[in-house]
Amino acid sequence: MYPYSAPLNEMRFLLDKVFKAPAIWQRLPQLAETVDLDTAMAILEEAAKLNRDIVQPINRAGDEQGVRFEDGTVITPDGYKEAYQAFMEGGWVGFCGDPEFGGMGMPKMLGVLVDEMGYSVCNAFNLYSSLTAGAALALNAHGSDELKDLYLPKLYSGEWAGAMDMTEPQAGSDLRGVRTRAEPQDDGSFLISGSKIFITGGDQDLTSNVVHLVLAKLAGSQSLSLFLVPKLKVNDDGSLGENNGVSVGSIEHKMGLKGSATCVMNFDNARGFLIGEADRGLACMFTMMNYERLAIGIQGLGSAQAASQLATDYAKERLQGLAATGSNAAADPILVHGDVRRMLLTIRSLTEAGRALAVDAGMQLDLAKFSEDEAERAKAARFVGLLTPVAKAFLTDRGLDACIMAQQVFGGAGYIRETGIEQFVRDTRIAQIYEGTNGIQAIDFLGRKVTGDNLATLNEFIAELKAELAALAPEWQDKAGELLALLDELIASAGNINEAKREQPALINSVAVDYLDAFGFSLYGYYWIKMAALAQEEADASFAQQKAAFCRFYLEKLLPRARWHLSQVNAGAGCVMETGAELF
Amino acid sequence: MYPYSAPLNEMRFLLDKVFKAPAIWQRLPQLAETVDLDTAMAILEEAAKLNRDIVQPINRAGDEQGVRFEDGTVITPDGYKEAYQAFMEGGWVGFCGDPEFGGMGMPKMLGVLVDEMGYSVCNAFNLYSSLTAGAALALNAHGSDELKDLYLPKLYSGEWAGAMDMTEPQAGSDLRGVRTRAEPQDDGSFLISGSKIFITGGDQDLTSNVVHLVLAKLAGSQSLSLFLVPKLKVNDDGSLGENNGVSVGSIEHKMGLKGSATCVMNFDNARGFLIGEADRGLACMFTMMNYERLAIGIQGLGSAQAASQLATDYAKERLQGLAATGSNAAADPILVHGDVRRMLLTIRSLTEAGRALAVDAGMQLDLAKFSEDEAERAKAARFVGLLTPVAKAFLTDRGLDACIMAQQVFGGAGYIRETGIEQFVRDTRIAQIYEGTNGIQAIDFLGRKVTGDNLATLNEFIAELKAELAALAPEWQDKAGELLALLDELIASAGNINEAKREQPALINSVAVDYLDAFGFSLYGYYWIKMAALAQEEADASFAQQKAAFCRFYLEKLLPRARWHLSQVNAGAGCVMETGAELF
Repeated sequence: MYPYSAPLNEMRFLLDKVFKAPAIWQRLPQLAETVDLDTAMAILEEAAKLNRDIVQPINRAGDEQGVRFEDGTVITPDGYKEAYQAFMEGGWVGFCGDPEFGGMGMPKMLGVLVDEMGYSVCNAFNLYSSLTAGAALALNAHGSDELKDLYLPKLYSGEWAGAMDMTEPQAGSDLRGVRTRAEPQDDGSFLISGSKIFITGGDQDLTSNVVHLVLAKLAGSQSLSLFLVPKLKVNDDGSLGENNGVSVGSIEHKMGLKGSATCVMNFDNARGFLIGEADRGLACMFTMMNYERLAIGIQGLGSAQAASQLATDYAKERLQGLAATGSNAAADPILVHGDVRRMLLTIRSLTEAGRALAVDAGMQLDLAKFSEDEAERAKAARFVGLLTPVAKAFLTDRGLDACIMAQQVFGGAGYIRETGIEQFVRDTRIAQIYEGTNGIQAIDFLGRKVTGDNLATLNEFIAELKAELAALAPEWQDKAGELLALLDELIASAGNINEAKREQPALINSVAVDYLDAFGFSLYGYYWIKMAALAQEEADASFAQQKAAFCRFYLEKLLPRARWHLSQVNAGAGCVMETGAELF
Repeated sequence: MYPYSAPLNEMRFLLDKVFKAPAIWQRLPQLAETVDLDTAMAILEEAAKLNRDIVQPINRAGDEQGVRFEDGTVITPDGYKEAYQAFMEGGWVGFCGDPEFGGMGMPKMLGVLVDEMGYSVCNAFNLYSSLTAGAALALNAHGSDELKDLYLPKLYSGEWAGAMDMTEPQAGSDLRGVRTRAEPQDDGSFLISGSKIFITGGDQDLTSNVVHLVLAKLAGSQSLSLFLVPKLKVNDDGSLGENNGVSVGSIEHKMGLKGSATCVMNFDNARGFLIGEADRGLACMFTMMNYERLAIGIQGLGSAQAASQLATDYAKERLQGLAATGSNAAADPILVHGDVRRMLLTIRSLTEAGRALAVDAGMQLDLAKFSEDEAERAKAARFVGLLTPVAKAFLTDRGLDACIMAQQVFGGAGYIRETGIEQFVRDTRIAQIYEGTNGIQAIDFLGRKVTGDNLATLNEFIAELKAELAALAPEWQDKAGELLALLDELIASAGNINEAKREQPALINSVAVDYLDAFGFSLYGYYWIKMAALAQEEADASFAQQKAAFCRFYLEKLLPRARWHLSQVNAGAGCVMETGAELF
């Protein structure tokens, strides 16, 4: 992967043909003036260039050097400052931000692709701006006009960064235990005191200020409220004042993401400002979390794409062994070997379907935000809700799979740091854990999104998949038999769970991960049939052949995995919950 | 896992009840005097103590500090020397070694359990002695009496270490490309010149000499011969002479195993001695490789056991969230959550079945070596051949799965270095790669062991599994329906491959990994039914209940995965091989 080569053809195909973005953009007034396919592709080419030329070069060295913590100050690895400067000057931090406050107002369909590129070249670097974008989104949705006027332009420009302060040692997946306190002051502000851990980008030396969104409790309340707490005080004119009682206690030593500062944050009577209503902080934070959950899914996708490119390049270059079908060479590229091909086809078919999922989720976000049709907005919001936990969990699980499999393609070289692939394994591993573990995502998916409305959204979504499949050319519909059976079984299985969930309160928690996996592997089957069918209309014959070949591999080899997950779902919670705690 | 607590109950149960080791040892003359169950358990307790008190403490610090390379010398992390001294003085290096040369002559059934403990506390440290034991085995099997007299006692005592020098930059999985040369000398010795890479324990500061087993080519030959090449020359009286032209070029910077030196070795007219016949070096090396392959499988098992203990302990201690079934606590241990239980039951059921596989392979090695019945020896040798690639690949694949899943149980803490579980992920990852990648193992399994003799050994082995199942109490036989169906399908599928392999030369390479996985998941089903059935005879009711519960989980949730792998096997090579190389 030297240099990074962005999958621009695949991106254009998804936008133009699979999800018909130009038509969507055209009919949405806020986007019609902003972007068309040519603009989109020019933007993607620019992003590809920036990531290749400016960001990729800092990835390996940043992993070796890591973030340092000296005299209370976080120092990012060499080159991060320069790369951030270029990134910021390109306007990428506010790419999908609100134009009213200086954002570029770009659609998320495009944003996910720009994000993918960033994560393909450097997981650690990309996180800094990702959190800023998420914080800006939450502030824009729930903040007062004063706060928005003062903070949003600096966040969108990248001059200041955002951070998300939720976790405490005793409050991780379960935030009820948060102990950070907020005391109301006469001027309407609050004094925040407490400690937060695992704060990505809690501090750094890239931006002049860090804007923390902090979950804390008001005296006497067990509910959480959300506060904006700047590292440095901000004067009314936007200029920076003294330190606001915000300090870094330490930084974590981690398996990977070594260029990203993971901070213990201490708030000592730090001045904060309420975002949204008191005691409704979790709902506000979810605006940021949902954004971040999709972004973290894209971390998995970007890493998978890097793995795909690294392993494919290596398999074409590395000479070892002879083709089983015969060869006159001294040694053939390992691409000739069936097992190497199996690994590459697995990585690539999962990655390309993953990109379709990311763009699909981005499209639903755009429709939910920009559509003028209230029913369309509402439906898209339902689909965003359904797809967000799947995108977060399934893209990151398959992202790690892809990196580990790519490392296997490299053989012994894959274990050596200089080769680079092992860094992606380490860097992307966290994506399955943070922003709500993938187990939490699955429980959200099955418990809230699928059974929470008695399968209404699931049925609506699957009906749409079936309608899309029915619109394809007949020879492609013929390939969808097993997929259609799986979609019906997903509904049947969810129906059984929905009926049983009251009598078996632990059922959803016990089978959720497998249900999400069964859904994910089925959904990828849908994307593949659709992509392969539509690719046949492309002028480039080899593009069409490639998508047909990848689709065939996916349907024959990987789609059947959905059945194993469904069998685990249908086996229920008995064997999980009836084992006495003393037997563990 | 502070401190490490060895699974002695499980080990005793496997030896005594599942594999009936005492009866086997009693009837094999060379073992009857050496070991009985009481001795075995005393030895395991001693090994547990040593690993807990002496080896475990160096694991984390050794990962942080790593091996250093200064002025051509390899320096192991602090504490390695002292730990090695204790390990050596306990006689553990020559534990299964030939008593004629100072080995302890212990059965491999016991050896695998001692090895497991070592890998549960420190992957990197344990490798040094593992390579020595393997080198001694190959030397004992193929070396001249002079070489054996001179080298074996020092290897078994641990005073000198062994290393295995095969790989070169252009010769990894395919050793035809080896360029290291051997020139015959008048005195019957050879001068060896060339470079080898990825040499585990190529040098260190733990032993006074390193004995390299080097694959090289004689002038004019394309075949490989095996040579013993000591780092320091050895005088006839066993005293050490000057350097033998053996030097370390550099050490690798790796994802993990940082306490283990992975060396580039340079041989510059180094004096070597032929082991076995000229041009038959690969066959001799395979004695060592088969030993190492099982040992590396045990690396996966030991890591899985560490993961199991770490995750279980954490799940009992960590308070977060409330039980879905209701709770009056402020927060419950996360063990109450269905998804956490699912992960723990997955880790534990895979690890305990993995231990059964390791002991089974050890038993077959013992029978092949010690039985006085030629037919029994031959059959056991066939079963060793069949089980070795499965033990190497399946134990290491499931080992990584277990470590990653355990890391997930920890949530965010699992990504932090101090927690320790992430080190096991990094350390054990290499086990899927070295000693022949797991892809190579699978091709060996399906191509040589399963179809190589037209399924004769596979049929024989599966018939034995069925006979063992038929001897169980009826209620346990009733649970074996799906397993028996899978065993028949494994035979049918292998039969189809065997018939098609000539017309489809790439078939075996394309489906081998899935065939091995289908076999492995089925075999674990067999072990679980057998273990659970026999556990019912134990006096400890909770032990019996636990094994029944783990067995139930395995059969309901994990055994069905074999069907997915079989479906991939049966989908064949078409979708893998018919994709043109230009489409990648």
